Amino acid sequence: MIDPIVLKGFRDSLPSEEIPKKNIERKLESVFEGFGFVPIDTPVLEYESVLLGKGGGETDKQIFHFEDNGGRKVAMRFDLTVPFARFLALHHDTLPIPFKRYHIAKAWRGENPQKGRYREFIQCDFDIVGVDNAEADFEILSLMYASFRAMGIQNVCFHVANRAIFNDFLETIDVKDKSIEILRAVDKLRKIGKDEVKSILLSLTGDEEKSEMIISFITSGDKKNFLETLDSIVSLIGRETENTERMRRIHSYLKAAAIDSFFVYDPSITRGLDYYTGIVYETFLTDFEAIGSVCSGGRYNNLASLYTKENLPGVGASIGLDRLLAALSELKSPLVSNQSSADCVVLYKSGEDEKAVMTAFSLRMKGLKTDVYLLPEKKAKAQYEYAEKLKIPYALSFKDGLFVVKNLKTRQTSETDSLERVIELCR
Amino acid sequence: MIDPIVLKGFRDSLPSEEIPKKNIERKLESVFEGFGFVPIDTPVLEYESVLLGKGGGETDKQIFHFEDNGGRKVAMRFDLTVPFARFLALHHDTLPIPFKRYHIAKAWRGENPQKGRYREFIQCDFDIVGVDNAEADFEILSLMYASFRAMGIQNVCFHVANRAIFNDFLETIDVKDKSIEILRAVDKLRKIGKDEVKSILLSLTGDEEKSEMIISFITSGDKKNFLETLDSIVSLIGRETENTERMRRIHSYLKAAAIDSFFVYDPSITRGLDYYTGIVYETFLTDFEAIGSVCSGGRYNNLASLYTKENLPGVGASIGLDRLLAALSELKSPLVSNQSSADCVVLYKSGEDEKAVMTAFSLRMKGLKTDVYLLPEKKAKAQYEYAEKLKIPYALSFKDGLFVVKNLKTRQTSETDSLERVIELCR
Repeated sequence: MIDPIVLKGFRDSLPSEEIPKKNIERKLESVFEGFGFVPIDTPVLEYESVLLGKGGGETDKQIFHFEDNGGRKVAMRFDLTVPFARFLALHHDTLPIPFKRYHIAKAWRGENPQKGRYREFIQCDFDIVGVDNAEADFEILSLMYASFRAMGIQNVCFHVANRAIFNDFLETIDVKDKSIEILRAVDKLRKIGKDEVKSILLSLTGDEEKSEMIISFITSGDKKNFLETLDSIVSLIGRETENTERMRRIHSYLKAAAIDSFFVYDPSITRGLDYYTGIVYETFLTDFEAIGSVCSGGRYNNLASLYTKENLPGVGASIGLDRLLAALSELKSPLVSNQSSADCVVLYKSGEDEKAVMTAFSLRMKGLKTDVYLLPEKKAKAQYEYAEKLKIPYALSFKDGLFVVKNLKTRQTSETDSLERVIELCR
Repeated sequence: MIDPIVLKGFRDSLPSEEIPKKNIERKLESVFEGFGFVPIDTPVLEYESVLLGKGGGETDKQIFHFEDNGGRKVAMRFDLTVPFARFLALHHDTLPIPFKRYHIAKAWRGENPQKGRYREFIQCDFDIVGVDNAEADFEILSLMYASFRAMGIQNVCFHVANRAIFNDFLETIDVKDKSIEILRAVDKLRKIGKDEVKSILLSLTGDEEKSEMIISFITSGDKKNFLETLDSIVSLIGRETENTERMRRIHSYLKAAAIDSFFVYDPSITRGLDYYTGIVYETFLTDFEAIGSVCSGGRYNNLASLYTKENLPGVGASIGLDRLLAALSELKSPLVSNQSSADCVVLYKSGEDEKAVMTAFSLRMKGLKTDVYLLPEKKAKAQYEYAEKLKIPYALSFKDGLFVVKNLKTRQTSETDSLERVIELCR
C-alpha cells in the first residue's frame, strides 16, 4: 500500500475550496474581457536560462529546476511575468499593439511554506504592453477597481505611488546613484519599521539629513487626500516634473470616473522588484490589512529587454489569488461559502431508477442544475446528508405519480405533475 | 541577449488559440456543473512513488521527474487519473459519496512530439465514484452526449463496449487466464489490422479456432444497431450474463432519453489500460474519424486500491482538449474562429484622451465589452488594423460632440449622443 500523501507545501483543492476559486476566476475573466483584455498561456516548463535571465552559474534555490530526459536544463515557472516577457519577445511581430493580456495560472517556488504561502500558487496577471502614457496607467487602475467590485469587495484601498517621482526626489537631494539600494531599504518600511530603515539609509547615504529627508518623503501625506500628498511631495522635490504631472492626470481620470475615493497616494509604496520605472501600487483589504497586498504591480519600461531589442513599455498588476481566497475565507465572505453544486438533487427508491435518471436528464436538458443520488438502496438519512454536504437547496422525489419538491432548509414540500413547475420551485 | 525560445514539444497559446480554448472549457464546466459535478484540483508535482504506483526501480522515461531541493523524488503528473486515485484515498472520509467530480488541467509526458501531440497537454476528466450500477454508467454517457451538444458538435458517435462482457466471452472459450494480454492485442486492431492481431492471438492462445472466434467477437455486429450487436455477442457467449443485462439496461436509458442514435455497440473497443472492469467507450467525430478518439473512458472498480483498502468503484471519461481543438480547427468550426475580444473599440485623436478613457470606462461599467486603443498619435490605418487583428466588430469615435459607431465589416456609421444607443448599436 502506498501512502497517499502530497508534498510539503502543496495541497489538494477540495470542492469546497475549488468552487469559490473557480467562481472568482470566472468573475475576473469576465471583467478582464469586458475591458478588451485577451487570455494567453505559456508552458509551465521553460529553459532555465530563459527563466533566470542568465547563461548559467548559480541557480536560485527557490526554483524547481532539473535536467530533462533530453539533457536540457529546465525549470518550472516561478511567476507569470518572466514567461510573459519571453512571450512578448517571441511574438510581438504578430500581436496587436497595444497588447492587453491576462493570464491566470499556477507558478511554483520552493520556499519554506508559511501560513497562506505555498510552493504551488495561482497568479492572476493583467498587463498593457506597447504604451507609455497616463491613459494606460489609468486603464490598469480602473481594471483593478472593477475586478474587486466584480468580486463584491467594496472595502478595498489601492495604495499608489510612483517610482520615477521618488527618483526625481533622490535627484533633488543628490543620491540618485544609490537609487536601487535606497528603494530596497524603503520597501522594508512596513516590515522593519522607520528606525531600522533610517539606519540602513544612513549607511547608504552617509548623511543624517538626507536619510531624514528620505524618511520624510516616504511618510509624507496623511493618505487621506491624494492631491495634498502629491503637493507635499512636489514641494519636497522642489518642482513639478513630468512624472508628478502624469500622476495629476491619472488622478483626474480617477476623479472623473468617481472612483478616486478608493485610491490613496502612499509614498511608502516602492515595490521591491528592480524592473518598475513609473507608477507602482499595492492593494489592501481594509477589513484585513494584515494579510498584506492582494494585488500589486506597476509600470515597467524594459521588461522584455533580456530577450529582444524591441522597446516594449508596459504597465500591469497581479492578483495573488491564494492570499485573496485566504482573506475572504477569514472574513467569512459569502463569495467563499454557501456554494452549492446543484440547484436540486433527485432522491429515489429502488425500482424508481428509470424515472429518476430520466427526470434528472430532462431537468438538465432544460437547464436546471440537477444532481441525482445514485444509491437508492441507502437510507433516507444518508441521502439527505449527501445533499447537505453539497449544500444543495432542493430535493426532488416521487410520490403517487407526482414530483415532490422539498426545500431542504425550511423542510417545506410542494407537489406538482409539471417539470416546468419543478424548475420554478428550485430557482 | 537570451534567445526567447520554448522547449521542444511545448508551445505558447496565443489569444487566437486561448480564447476558443477558454470558451470550450467554460461550456464544459457549465455542463458538468449542470449535472451536479463539482471541481477539484490536485498538485502538479507529486511524490514519484505515488504517481508511478511503486516503491522505486526503473522510472518511466516518459515522465518528467527529478529530485527536489529537499532531496525528495518528485514527478509532474502525466494524467489526472492517478492523482485522482490518490486524492480519493486521502479524502474519501470527508467527500460526499457518490462523489462526482470534474478536473480540467494540464499534464505532462516526455514522449516524442507528433502532429497534435505535445509534451504539455490538457485533460478534462469527469468521474462518478462510489457506485457500481447502470444508472451511474448512463450518467457518464449522457454527460458525454451533453458535453458535445454544448460545444455545438452534433456529428459525434460514441463507441461503447464492455470489458466484463469480453471476459464473459473469454471464459466461454476457456482463455480467460490470458485476458489482459488478449485485451492488449485486440486494442491494436485499428492500428495494425485484423491479420496482425490474429497472429498475436494465435501465439497467445496457441489455438487457430479460438483466435478466429476472438476476431469474430470483436468484429461482430455492423455497428448500426446496438441491440442486434448485443444479441450476436450474447449468442457468441452462449448466454445472457449480468454484464450483458446491464448493457441492455443502459441502452434502454439511452433510448428513453432519445439519444441512442449517437451510440453504437462496438466490440472492438477495449481500451489499452488495465484498470477498466466494465463499460468502456471512445468518441469519434464523424467528420474527422482519423484524428482518433476525442473522449474515452470506462468503468474501473479498483482505481484507488494502490493507496487504500476502501472499495471505491468508479466510472468516468476524459476529453483530450488539445486533440479536440486541433480537430475543430481543421474542420473550420465557428467554435474556434471569429472570436472577438471585445464588442467595441474606442478610437480617438490626441486631445480627446479624457473623453475616450471616460467613455470606455462608462461603457464597461454598463456591461459592454469595450477596448480602447491607447495610441491616439498613430494613423487611422494602424488603429483599424488593431481592431481587425482582434476581430472587434465595432469602432466608436467622437465627432461634433456625438458618438460615431462604425460597423467595421459593412463600414456603415451611425451617430448618437446617447451611450445607451451606443450599446444597442454594438450588440
